[in-house]
Amino acid sequence: MTTARSIRLAARPKGLATLKDLSLTEDPIPVPGPGQFLVRVIWLSLDPYMRGRMDDAKSYAKPVDIGDIMQGGCVGEVLASHHPHYTPGEIVTGAFGWTTHAVSDGEGVRKLDPRLAPVSTALGVLGMPGITAWVGLNDIAAAQPGETIVVSAATGAVGGLVGQLAKAKGMTVIGLAGGPDKCAYACEALGYDHCLDHRAAPDARTLGARIAEVAPQGVDVYFENVGGKSLSAVLPRMNVHGRVALCGMIAWYGGQNLEEALPLPLVWRTVLTRRLGVQGFIIFDHFHRFPEFLKEVGPMVADGRIVVREDVTEGIENAPAAFLRMLGGGNFGKTLVRVGPDP
Amino acid sequence: MTTARSIRLAARPKGLATLKDLSLTEDPIPVPGPGQFLVRVIWLSLDPYMRGRMDDAKSYAKPVDIGDIMQGGCVGEVLASHHPHYTPGEIVTGAFGWTTHAVSDGEGVRKLDPRLAPVSTALGVLGMPGITAWVGLNDIAAAQPGETIVVSAATGAVGGLVGQLAKAKGMTVIGLAGGPDKCAYACEALGYDHCLDHRAAPDARTLGARIAEVAPQGVDVYFENVGGKSLSAVLPRMNVHGRVALCGMIAWYGGQNLEEALPLPLVWRTVLTRRLGVQGFIIFDHFHRFPEFLKEVGPMVADGRIVVREDVTEGIENAPAAFLRMLGGGNFGKTLVRVGPDP
Repeated sequence: MTTARSIRLAARPKGLATLKDLSLTEDPIPVPGPGQFLVRVIWLSLDPYMRGRMDDAKSYAKPVDIGDIMQGGCVGEVLASHHPHYTPGEIVTGAFGWTTHAVSDGEGVRKLDPRLAPVSTALGVLGMPGITAWVGLNDIAAAQPGETIVVSAATGAVGGLVGQLAKAKGMTVIGLAGGPDKCAYACEALGYDHCLDHRAAPDARTLGARIAEVAPQGVDVYFENVGGKSLSAVLPRMNVHGRVALCGMIAWYGGQNLEEALPLPLVWRTVLTRRLGVQGFIIFDHFHRFPEFLKEVGPMVADGRIVVREDVTEGIENAPAAFLRMLGGGNFGKTLVRVGPDP
Repeated sequence: MTTARSIRLAARPKGLATLKDLSLTEDPIPVPGPGQFLVRVIWLSLDPYMRGRMDDAKSYAKPVDIGDIMQGGCVGEVLASHHPHYTPGEIVTGAFGWTTHAVSDGEGVRKLDPRLAPVSTALGVLGMPGITAWVGLNDIAAAQPGETIVVSAATGAVGGLVGQLAKAKGMTVIGLAGGPDKCAYACEALGYDHCLDHRAAPDARTLGARIAEVAPQGVDVYFENVGGKSLSAVLPRMNVHGRVALCGMIAWYGGQNLEEALPLPLVWRTVLTRRLGVQGFIIFDHFHRFPEFLKEVGPMVADGRIVVREDVTEGIENAPAAFLRMLGGGNFGKTLVRVGPDP
């Protein structure tokens, strides 16, 4: 391989993102300068937050500029190094982007030990989605044993771990997922007590009635990844002093499904009269919790108490289609792109 | 006076409450049984939460039944007693309702010392609205010196104290109030740094632009009493890690002004990307804080550091009109009805 292949933002999406908004380019493999090293990417992580970076709306992170390589977390191998702390052959994780090759000065990069866990887990259950699940459940929602939690996107990279950690904590765990396969997997593999197929419910009222059936005791914690119909179904079921950990709202990222939103006065009334807490969080604010997270969850992954499912697409050129599929809920587990071979 | 006069719920309001929903009745003065005492009411408090009790929607408190006396906090004098701890002549505060005379078994009743502060303050700045302001600012919003707070209903029974406590804490304090008189009073008497007249702003965008002018540094805490246009104006100005203490939403209580609500997806996006916390609270959950509250705020009222303004209507028969006027923002300060003379 003599060129680097990358996926760049070609245009800002109007509503739903399309393949035309992303383009594959070939460039010379970048050359590391002083204090830098060259990485060949093995795994690229695809995550819902990336949809936000395609817009130029004000947000917590700078958007990707038109023509720039899409941002994303990766696992790769150091090929060449002018950096004192990195040597060729080392496996690292960092925000190298949607590309086959990248140079880095080491900022935000972490070395991985392939003997501890498959290195792809650094992008999933032991990486950003994993700590998101753990912080959201424990620090944001202050979830307690004996409580009832609803997890939307229940089998996704974040939700799949939230459900398993909640179960391990002694909670009653109810998932919301799209389709019977995901729901079966949630109950059989991940240990959810119940998982409801939001696609089978024609509207929020029906979905809410199903939640009331499986959780007659009400809902204490809602781990919110979705917005849309799921939110409209769960919120009226929340108990007094319930908490909503607002982690994502994938149903609304492209400006679709807006008609499924509850009116704000009704939401405000529910939050007031039931004394709910709604807390938005972005995992960047909580990376200081990483050592504690790894200490607790690492062993659970290593000994198989935590089940990991990856949805792997082969080849950087197929990353855009895989990304759009994930935004539409077509992924099943942590969405990864296999960019290059294992060392 | 040989009869008790009371205001009863005549009908459940459809939307905005009207005078027809409340009726004045005369009954024999009730006779205290064993363990009870008779109170003649001196002051009746009128508060926005009472509008909620007129509906039969599920809420945190049981609604008033049709034909029952409206619920409300009062200050009164014990006239006769078969209760070991209460003696005629004592001044007490309790939820005696919209009436001239009530019997009580002492539950939820507290004795007042008229030498410490005017007894009407037990219904305002040193009572339920006062502790609501103090708990919301300190326990719910965790407001800090140097931060910027926006207080809606800035001169109301709750908001007027929030603003003064926030100023005493060293915050930049911005009020929202209806009309130039209230705004002038907020700045001149209560010490607000700025107060904006929401009635002078044709829409939320205009009001929001005015907030941005007086708070170019953004808003850290929003003490929410109103909903409606005020909320739509403030939320987009919130800083990262901002907090909303959701105390009331008077603009929406009668089902009006719904068109002024932001779309929920936009609110959710703001809460997520700015990592906001929205916490609903009802003061009933926090009455254990009363001694601490009185210890801090009592001396501030006694020595005049806290300014108190009361909006007094004479006569129980005029309570319904005063109540409706308050719901429409026509009150100026803590709304009280003078039901009987001082002892």
